[in-house]
Order: sequence, then structure tokens, then C-alpha cells
Amino acid sequence: MNVNHLLSVLHANLPAENSGRVADYIPELACVDPHKFGVHAITVDQHEYSFGDSEEGFSIQSIAKVLSLTMAYQRENQELWKRVGVEPSGTPFNSLIQLEADAGIPRNPMINAGALVVCDVLLNYLAHPQQDLLAFVHSLSGDFTIGFNETVAASERANSDRNRALIEFMRSFGNIHNPTDRILDFYCSLCALEMSCAQLSRNFLFLANKGISPITGRAIVSSSMTKRLNAIMQLCGLYDEAGEFAFRVGLPGKSGVGGGIVALLPGDYCITVWSPPLNHKGNSFYGMAFLEQFTSEVGDSIF
Amino acid sequence: MNVNHLLSVLHANLPAENSGRVADYIPELACVDPHKFGVHAITVDQHEYSFGDSEEGFSIQSIAKVLSLTMAYQRENQELWKRVGVEPSGTPFNSLIQLEADAGIPRNPMINAGALVVCDVLLNYLAHPQQDLLAFVHSLSGDFTIGFNETVAASERANSDRNRALIEFMRSFGNIHNPTDRILDFYCSLCALEMSCAQLSRNFLFLANKGISPITGRAIVSSSMTKRLNAIMQLCGLYDEAGEFAFRVGLPGKSGVGGGIVALLPGDYCITVWSPPLNHKGNSFYGMAFLEQFTSEVGDSIF
Amino acid sequence: MNVNHLLSVLHANLPAENSGRVADYIPELACVDPHKFGVHAITVDQHEYSFGDSEEGFSIQSIAKVLSLTMAYQRENQELWKRVGVEPSGTPFNSLIQLEADAGIPRNPMINAGALVVCDVLLNYLAHPQQDLLAFVHSLSGDFTIGFNETVAASERANSDRNRALIEFMRSFGNIHNPTDRILDFYCSLCALEMSCAQLSRNFLFLANKGISPITGRAIVSSSMTKRLNAIMQLCGLYDEAGEFAFRVGLPGKSGVGGGIVALLPGDYCITVWSPPLNHKGNSFYGMAFLEQFTSEVGDSIF
Amino acid sequence: MNVNHLLSVLHANLPAENSGRVADYIPELACVDPHKFGVHAITVDQHEYSFGDSEEGFSIQSIAKVLSLTMAYQRENQELWKRVGVEPSGTPFNSLIQLEADAGIPRNPMINAGALVVCDVLLNYLAHPQQDLLAFVHSLSGDFTIGFNETVAASERANSDRNRALIEFMRSFGNIHNPTDRILDFYCSLCALEMSCAQLSRNFLFLANKGISPITGRAIVSSSMTKRLNAIMQLCGLYDEAGEFAFRVGLPGKSGVGGGIVALLPGDYCITVWSPPLNHKGNSFYGMAFLEQFTSEVGDSIF
Repeated sequence: MNVNHLLSVLHANLPAENSGRVADYIPELACVDPHKFGVHAITVDQHEYSFGDSEEGFSIQSIAKVLSLTMAYQRENQELWKRVGVEPSGTPFNSLIQLEADAGIPRNPMINAGALVVCDVLLNYLAHPQQDLLAFVHSLSGDFTIGFNETVAASERANSDRNRALIEFMRSFGNIHNPTDRILDFYCSLCALEMSCAQLSRNFLFLANKGISPITGRAIVSSSMTKRLNAIMQLCGLYDEAGEFAFRVGLPGKSGVGGGIVALLPGDYCITVWSPPLNHKGNSFYGMAFLEQFTSEVGDSIF
Repeated sequence: MNVNHLLSVLHANLPAENSGRVADYIPELACVDPHKFGVHAITVDQHEYSFGDSEEGFSIQSIAKVLSLTMAYQRENQELWKRVGVEPSGTPFNSLIQLEADAGIPRNPMINAGALVVCDVLLNYLAHPQQDLLAFVHSLSGDFTIGFNETVAASERANSDRNRALIEFMRSFGNIHNPTDRILDFYCSLCALEMSCAQLSRNFLFLANKGISPITGRAIVSSSMTKRLNAIMQLCGLYDEAGEFAFRVGLPGKSGVGGGIVALLPGDYCITVWSPPLNHKGNSFYGMAFLEQFTSEVGDSIF
Repeated sequence: MNVNHLLSVLHANLPAENSGRVADYIPELACVDPHKFGVHAITVDQHEYSFGDSEEGFSIQSIAKVLSLTMAYQRENQELWKRVGVEPSGTPFNSLIQLEADAGIPRNPMINAGALVVCDVLLNYLAHPQQDLLAFVHSLSGDFTIGFNETVAASERANSDRNRALIEFMRSFGNIHNPTDRILDFYCSLCALEMSCAQLSRNFLFLANKGISPITGRAIVSSSMTKRLNAIMQLCGLYDEAGEFAFRVGLPGKSGVGGGIVALLPGDYCITVWSPPLNHKGNSFYGMAFLEQFTSEVGDSIF
Repeated sequence: MNVNHLLSVLHANLPAENSGRVADYIPELACVDPHKFGVHAITVDQHEYSFGDSEEGFSIQSIAKVLSLTMAYQRENQELWKRVGVEPSGTPFNSLIQLEADAGIPRNPMINAGALVVCDVLLNYLAHPQQDLLAFVHSLSGDFTIGFNETVAASERANSDRNRALIEFMRSFGNIHNPTDRILDFYCSLCALEMSCAQLSRNFLFLANKGISPITGRAIVSSSMTKRLNAIMQLCGLYDEAGEFAFRVGLPGKSGVGGGIVALLPGDYCITVWSPPLNHKGNSFYGMAFLEQFTSEVGDSIF
């Protein structure tokens, strides 16, 4: 099968009208060209396929939560789950209601509250959080060009009221230990990581390969931990559309409001799509449609 | 590999102490011998393996929700999702809170509210609901010995207050159309289906085989519908322990308070474990532990 | 002061535009002439004043909850508060959410859940509930012409889904003991009581007179019980507008979706206004405005 | 009637066992002698009566919310109600759930969220918030000895996580405008006001006198505003025990976790009781019991 050709055919098959809307809570996201479209796939034996704007960097936003989670899980192992759950939430990504019922323990690390706890955990270990995070990201596929978009990070910091509330609320239950500004500073850098589809696919490939990056040969996490990370992505990675994604795409995945979606078939490949307009659940409209076609065509899903 | 031997070894490896408790909300469940243990697996090419009380019938309870869902999905196809969602709920199986926020649309068909809507849908199609249900169940693997435990059904009917409230509540939003007593009567029969591990594995095998029962050759649902059913089981099948189950077992599955758990690896096999004592989330304590060992040993999970 | 003249002046001062809307969930209420307006006041020494359609009967709806509560309180005394609370709810009148958190104990007897529990209590005492209720109502001021509007009662019964859900839900917590249909039948009759402003003022006058009807001389409840009933009206009588009513009117009161509001100044008088169009909180728009002017003018409020 | 004698008799009649517990979330409150008991009453014609530790200062805590509310109401008039409601909440004093449903508008100014909004409002007006607050407090009865307990204020500041969360949460809805630390600093000073029963009764007397302090002759708020403040106290002043207080005591009142309760009969008197042990709703156990006896004996309540 000529996969590159397939990618272009699938792109041509996308619905003519993109009913999504570009995220606009910060100006840097609102200004992105809504017609951008990129896709990149890489197999565990390192064949790569791509189409469109696959080498153009974009704001990966919440996709980065998987990276910080991986770093924290490396350091805390099972202890981590005392501070953040692994179950889907059934509520919006930034809700405080469930936190109140659950005494400050976020339902999972993919909602904002959980990602903030993960950042709080990491601050206990990292001497230079941003640099250490970049070093980790660079090590995943040996790509040292990846960096933060500092303008995005600054905008995120200026729009942190709800996240600040989440931090203080969890602190009141004893589930936050570092200064709020340090946590937010780190968290906003994390969300402001900029990568292309190609960089994302390569960097997430260890999750399709039992925790070992096929590119660098380096073991990132154990096989069992990989399973846990994939399970969390499967159940909690697509905001309140996990069930829909599981059916339509059938792969563990993680989306971001920058319009990116990473998905992977364990043992096989990792694929990233980027198209900025989001559906009403906050996931890339074309990204969902493309991945659905792709897995239907390729015939692989975990179900 | 001698799978039958493996099953006995895994059973021997279970934690000595079973910290679970047998369900006791109806006397028929409370009286079940807590030491019962059975397991049965069947591959899509129809090799069968078993250990313990694998041929003894037990109350499958909520596992039956997958069967009624399959019947309704056959009849309504995508229309069904207008009346019940496909996303995990994040709340207990019989909560009314989310229903109020979501205007009477249950989050998914595995929580009680959703299963009751499914029964309401089926009553629009079935002339003799209980017989028609049995006929469907019998057709799945050609086993005509499967039946209802009428004592259990009667007890369920006598303990229906909460389910009755769910029905009336959804009716007030226009999402219920049949008489309450008819729905409850049907629902309680459904929950009172009695099967052995072997019967369950064989009956659920179509879900591991793209919708076609390898035993009878009959197409139950399409390949796409199978994917949807498995996705729903993966995300919503284990009450509030879906994330834990996805990690520890890594397969789509469905549990019941009778102590049964069915799980399946698409394209490969279906396995059923039965051990009555339940953990605090309402899932079989030994069942979870056994399946975790099994998938670790066999090396197969979807993640 | 010529109070009759005052009433007509205050009526002339009402805002020209009535921004309220007549209740329309049952046809009998939807058809009421929105221009109807009546007011009637009676002092504890039995001076009476009125204006407009003060002798025309209307559906008193939720105002009747005070009457059934009084009957139940007579019979159960303090025991009643084990089954229904006395605190404001902060949620809509027919919400199930708080019931779930409070294990089936309604926050107060003025929300539907609480009024249904009160009906359930009364069914334990009354041999012929509807007749016994009428007898009680007749006894309050010796007016034997008061009756039910059977058409309204029938419509209410046909729109009982949510109330049925509330009953079953509370039954699942053990806080309901009679058959659902009996409770609903009684409750719907209660809501369908028809009285004029004059009849309501006379019938509620005992609450302004330490529990004794000045008209008949009969002691309905003790002075202490009267205080409890007035406190409940003050805090819970105006749906989610109790605080606004306490400020603007400053009297214990009870409203109904038929457009009536009864209010009373302990030791002094009882006043009833009727104007069908309701504000968005479900209280008579003109009724609120009139009572606000009245207490401002008369200079009496409890604050 | 010899009221001083009555107060001592009522004190002797208190239940022998005080089942309450002293607040312990900050050490300064935990250390207060639980046997302290004081009561002071003052009529609008300035007769004063007292018993016990009525001249000893204690931490007035949430009682101060009425004072800050009065200051904000003076400055904003009806505009204030766009930022904070006037309805009872039905939820604990520091809950975030209702805030989420109501888009950042607190239900009333007596719960923490509402009091924090009031502080935010005042910071827009006051050049030297703490001094200006003290000046206002001093002006109410001309007592210049009233001050803050700085140790309490410091402890409050060190225990502000939940309040900080409330502020950031409301800020995310646009309902907070000043820096968090400034708001908390002011709020914690407010809660740390120290007064005796006598000082509280004298300072709150304007609320029993249509907004005019009988002691200084100064008009604090208008008669209409006084009615609003009393209505808010009546419906929201006693945490989740407003209905119980309305029945047992029957007066508008405000409690604090320092063990103080102020209550007043419009047109008549103001009374303050202080006894540190709190019931499970957070109100002074002896304070409630004493006021109940007092109003029963004196025969005055608003109901």
C-alpha cells in the first residue's frame, strides 16, 4: 500500500465544509490559519508517511499532558495514583465540582486539575523545570529543535484564573505542595510546547513500542507503565468525546486545542493529525474525521 | 502452551485472602457460595479452555446489558444514540444527578438509566419481550438451555424503586415511552439471565469476531457496530473502574454484581471469570485479579 | 386610612407592562385570563378590604402545600421533621439532585419532594384523604363552598412524571410508604384546590393569630407550631425568590403558579393577591409588585 | 421585668451538657476557654442588660460580614446585587459547586464567596481598607477601642487556601477585580475583628432602628436598605441552620465560628450571646439555646 498516497486520498475525502471553530481564548491560537492541515505517521520499524503541513510547528497544548505525565510516572511509579486518579471524569476539563466531591483528588491526569497535580509532583524533582522538560522531550526522538512558544506561554499565564482556582482548591485539600506561581509557570510552558506532526509522531512512538523509543533505542518507561499511559489516553484523552473517539478511531489518543491529535496502535504505529478548527467538544473536527477514515481504511483499531 | 494448565496455575496464584463481599441487595445473590470460582475461554477458532466451576450457571446481572444493547442496536442503528450516549459517566451506576444536567439522556447504555432506555426501545419492537430476548440469546451460540432465574427476577422486581425513579425521571424529559411496569418487568428478566462461564464466553464470542458468531456462523451485527459495542464496553463496562480495568486487564469487558466478568480480545478470544465476592467498586475481586494475571501471562492486551 | 381606596391606588400604580407569563404546563392554567387581578386583606380583628376580582376562584396550586403541611404537623408534631427538613433548598422546586445528596430527605415541605412526603404522611392518617382535606379547609374559616377543580386535578395527574420520579426516588431511600398512585392522586387534588383571594386570606388568617382562626375561634395549631409554619413560609415559600420577597415584601408568604400569593403579618393581618402572569422565578409578577407597594405604604414588615 | 435577672435565669436553665465543640481550624480559636459565656442586650431606647462575660472581647469572625456588607451597600446601593445574590444557598459556606452553576455569582453575601466579592468591591473605594473599616466600626456606636486581633488575622491568612480558590474561581468568571492577596488580607482582618457582646449589640443596633444608630444618632443606611440587610441575615445568616433559627429564635441574626451570635428585633432591641462551643452546623450551641429561651420568654419574634 502506498501510504503517502492514501493520506492524500483521505484528505481529499474530508467533508467539504469544516464546521469547527479555531480556539480563541488566547490571541496566539485565534490567529492560526484555519486551513492548515498536516498528518504524519511513523511505524515502530520507522517507516514514515506524511501529507500537507506535516513539518510545520503548532501549539500542542494539552497533548503535552501526556509528556509531563510520563515524566512524573517515571519518578513516582504507582505512588503517583495516590494523588491523581485514572478514571474518566464525565465533566468538562476544567470543572471544580468533582474535585469537591473527591476531596481534591482529580479524576485523571488529562483534565486540567490532574495535569496541575502532575506539574506539582514534577517540581519536587526538577531543578530547572522548563529545561528539564525540554531535555526529556528532546530525548524522546533525539530532536533538539523542539522548544516553547514563549508568546503562547505568556498568554496562557495571563489567562490562568481558573487553573489558579483549581490549584488553590486542591491545596485546601492538601494535594498541592509547591507555590502556585511556580506550578502555573511550569504548566503554561508545558502547554506552549510547539511541535510539528512529524515531531509529535516520533516523540510519542515509544507508547506504541512498549515504552522504548525505536528511534533512539532508549527505554522511556516500562512495558507495564506504557500500558497504563495508553489506557489513560484511551479513556481520558479526548475530553468528553472519549467514547466517540474509541468507536470512530479506536486507538488511544490525545488531543489539544491547538488542533492536534496524536493516536497510536500499540505494536504498530503512531499518527498525528493537525487541523486547527475544533468541534464543540474541543477536538479537531478534521482531525477526528481523518483518523476515522484512516483506521477504517487501514483496518486496524484496538476493538 | 497448555492453557488449561495455565488457568489452574493462575488460580493458584490468586491472593490467599479474598477481600471482596458478595452482593446482598437481594437474598438470591446473598446466598451464593462465595468460594465458587470458574473461568472459561474460547478462541475465535473455537478452542476452549476452562477451570473450576466453569459450567455452573450464575446470575449474569449487568453483563446482560450488552445483550439488550446489541438487540436494540440491531434495530435502531445510529438512531439509538439520540436516546443514550456513549461516554463514560464518572458517577455511580444509579445516579440521577447527571440525568438532570443532561435533560434525561443517560451518559451510556451500561449505567442503569441507559439500560432502561434500551429496554424501552426494545419494547417498541418485541411482541413477546422475554421470549424474544431468550431467542436472541439462544441464537448467539445455539445454546437453547439458557433461561431466566425467575426467583431472581421476582426479587429484582421487588427492589426496583430506584430504577422506577430513573424511568419516571427520564419520562419527564420525554425519553421514555412505554409503561413503567412493562419496562421494569423486562429489565428485571434481563438481569436475571443465568449462564455459566462457558455459555457467556461462547455467547459473547461474536464481539471478538467482527460481529459474526464463529460457532453458528451467523452475523449478529456489522463489523462497525461491533467496534462500537467494544468501545462502549471498554469505556463504560466496569462501573467506575474502567480506567483500572483498562490498565490491569487491557480488554473491553463487562461485569455484573453476580461476580461474573466477560472480557475479549478482538480477533482472538473471549474469556469469562466468575467469583461472587465484589470489591468496593462492585466488580469481582478475584475476577479482576485473575484477568490481570491472564493478560500479563498471555501477553495480549489492546494497549 | 381608607384601605379599600389604598388597594385601588396601589393597583393603579402597578407597572403598565406586565412582563410575566401565564403558566402553561397544563391547559387549564394556560387558558386563564391574564388580566385578572384581585386582592383581599383581612385583619385579625376581622376587618376586610378588597379590590378587583377578589371573589373569583382560581387554582391555588402550591399555596395548598401550607394547608397539607399544617394537617401533617397537627398529627406528627416534631416527628414530621425526621422526614422533611426546614431549610431553604437553593435549587429549583422539582430538583432531584439535593435529594440524592441528602439520602431522600427533602430540604423543606414547600418544594415538590417535601410536599409529596407530607402527602405520604397524611395518607397514614386519613381514611378519605380528599374529603378529609376538604373538611379541614372548610373548617379554617367555616366556608363550605371551597372545592377541587377536577379538570385541573385530572390535568395534573396526566403531568406527573417528575413527581412520580421524586416519589420513587425517595421510596428507594425508605422515605415513602404509600402506593405512588395514591400519593399522586391526593397531591394532585391538593394542588387543584380552588379559592378566591377572599377565601385564601380568611383561611390563612390563623397563621397571623398564633394558630387560632379569629373567624371560627378554633385552634388549628399551637402558637409554637404557627411560628414554625411562618418561618418555613418566610424561608422557603417563594421558590428561589425567598430573599427577594423577604426584602421587597418582608412577610412570610406562599405563592402558587396559578398566580396567587398569600402573605401575612403575625399579629396583624393576612393578604392575598392574584394575577396569573408569572415572573421567571415562577411567582406572580404583579403579585410581587403589589405586595411590595402595600407593605411600603402600610409601613409594616417583619424587618 | 427585671431583664438582668431574666438573663441569669435563662443562663441557669441552659442544658447542663454543652454538646458543641470549639472551632479548631486555627490555634487562636482552639485555645479559647469553652466555658466563657456572655450575653448583652440593648433596646432602641438604649436600655442595656447583660450577664456573664459580656464585656470580654472575642473573635467575631463571620459576624463581621454584615459590617463589610453594610459598607459596600452604602457605596454601591442596588448595583451590588449584580455581583452577589440575596438568596439562601442550601450548600456549605465554602462550597464551589453553586458558583460553577451560577457563573461566578455567589448566592449571598454571608457565604465566604459572597463576602469575598464584597471585600473586592470595597477595595475599589477604600484608600486604607483596614483603617477605613475600623473607622466605620468605631462610628457605629462611637466606641474607638475596637480593633483587630492581629494574631488571629495572621492565622487566617495562613489558612486561606479555600478562600484563595474561591477568589480565583470567581475571577475566572469576571467577578473579581483586585489582586488576590489584597482581598485576602482585607478579608482576614475583617474576620479578626474583636468585640465583646456589649460592643456587638451596640454596633448592630442601627439594624433594629431603621438604619439609624440610636447611640450616635447617625444614619448608617436607609430604612429600605436596613430591611434588605435584615432579610439577608434572616435567610442566610446562620449557615445551613437558617430555618431552624427562624423557628427557634425567630429573629434576623448572624453567627460566627468564634461562638458569637447577634440577633435583633426590628424596632425593639439587639442581643448578642457568646459561647465558644459550636454545634455541627457551626453555630454556638449555647447561643442558639439561650436565644430560643429568650424569645420564648420575652414573647417576641417576627413570626
